[in-house]
Amino acid sequence: MQIAVLLFEGFTSLDAVGPYEILSRLPGAETVFVAKAPGPVRNDQGSLALTADKSLAEVPHPDVVLVPGGPETRQAAHDPEIRQWLRTADATSTWTTSVCTGSLLLAAAGLLEGRRATTHWLAFDELRALGVEPTGERVVFDGKYVTAAGVSSGIDMGLHLLGRIAGDEAAMTVQLLTEYDPQPPYDAGSPLKAPAHLVERWRSVRTEDLPQG
Amino acid sequence: MQIAVLLFEGFTSLDAVGPYEILSRLPGAETVFVAKAPGPVRNDQGSLALTADKSLAEVPHPDVVLVPGGPETRQAAHDPEIRQWLRTADATSTWTTSVCTGSLLLAAAGLLEGRRATTHWLAFDELRALGVEPTGERVVFDGKYVTAAGVSSGIDMGLHLLGRIAGDEAAMTVQLLTEYDPQPPYDAGSPLKAPAHLVERWRSVRTEDLPQG
Repeated sequence: MQIAVLLFEGFTSLDAVGPYEILSRLPGAETVFVAKAPGPVRNDQGSLALTADKSLAEVPHPDVVLVPGGPETRQAAHDPEIRQWLRTADATSTWTTSVCTGSLLLAAAGLLEGRRATTHWLAFDELRALGVEPTGERVVFDGKYVTAAGVSSGIDMGLHLLGRIAGDEAAMTVQLLTEYDPQPPYDAGSPLKAPAHLVERWRSVRTEDLPQG
Repeated sequence: MQIAVLLFEGFTSLDAVGPYEILSRLPGAETVFVAKAPGPVRNDQGSLALTADKSLAEVPHPDVVLVPGGPETRQAAHDPEIRQWLRTADATSTWTTSVCTGSLLLAAAGLLEGRRATTHWLAFDELRALGVEPTGERVVFDGKYVTAAGVSSGIDMGLHLLGRIAGDEAAMTVQLLTEYDPQPPYDAGSPLKAPAHLVERWRSVRTEDLPQG
């Protein structure tokens, strides 16, 4: 089983590395970071670079496609090479997945038409504009398409997907080894739970100035 | 404020990137990945490489030191250059922190003597052998020393620390933007909660064969 994680300039690091840390522990799986060209790819903050070990052309038919988000998904969604790779890879994939605004890339490539899907809570209108109604769930399965909400939700997605692929015991083993027993010090991780004034402050920011990943 | 994340061959990626994603969003902070030499540094799985943008010598006095874990902490702990850098950086740091077996590096450098601290649940005996009794808590503050349990606990640590540095509202903002509202599909993230036979299976693995990060 080959798992391909797409990188593009301005991706959000945890979107990619969260589910990577879970899925790459699947016994027998090969996980590979891919980008238009091999080499270091900078994240949205500019302070982190992850290496793409292969070009898109070198990994045309992964079993699992994983697309992170980031402020630059708006540019990446219009990149013909990325769009074509997503369509080609999706044609033979077993699972096509995204985290955060990565679903905007899938939608822009025409892969989420008529599907249940989600994205970062601040990008709901953008997903709607691409013809897909966000569900508001943290992890959404629709056939082979799996989309997750903002940034950190990719870890939950990874565990759900690992369970589907390899069974509950394999997924629980990875949860135990990564000690994923979350204990956040606040209960502010969704717009339904965070203080209303914080939610409103971010809703009023223009889309192009959003830092959401 | 300068935040330095230490990289070494064989680090566990989420140990570093989880708290990075939280702390790097601190307004005005500069976050930099450091290693013995600048360039790509491979993780424990071999399929991910993060770029160290600066050498240890270039970042002698960060305000926050963040040390990830990984199976290779056992080697890194004996590296005189890493050990010396940790001591020098710690001498002037505001916060010295670790995730997972990163605390073994801090302990081996003599920085946790007489302190409350923790590590990955599978590395408790190793921390004890370095003279530090693990507390079993997920995130432990003792003065300026902050240690977290296994892999994913670094995200919780990042939020705790951000709250201390910049206040609750700043930390809740980052939790909201990273949509950290965890909903794992299983409740198997700690040895107290996972099925007993899984815990026993991993406890019986020899230390040098452990994959825990």
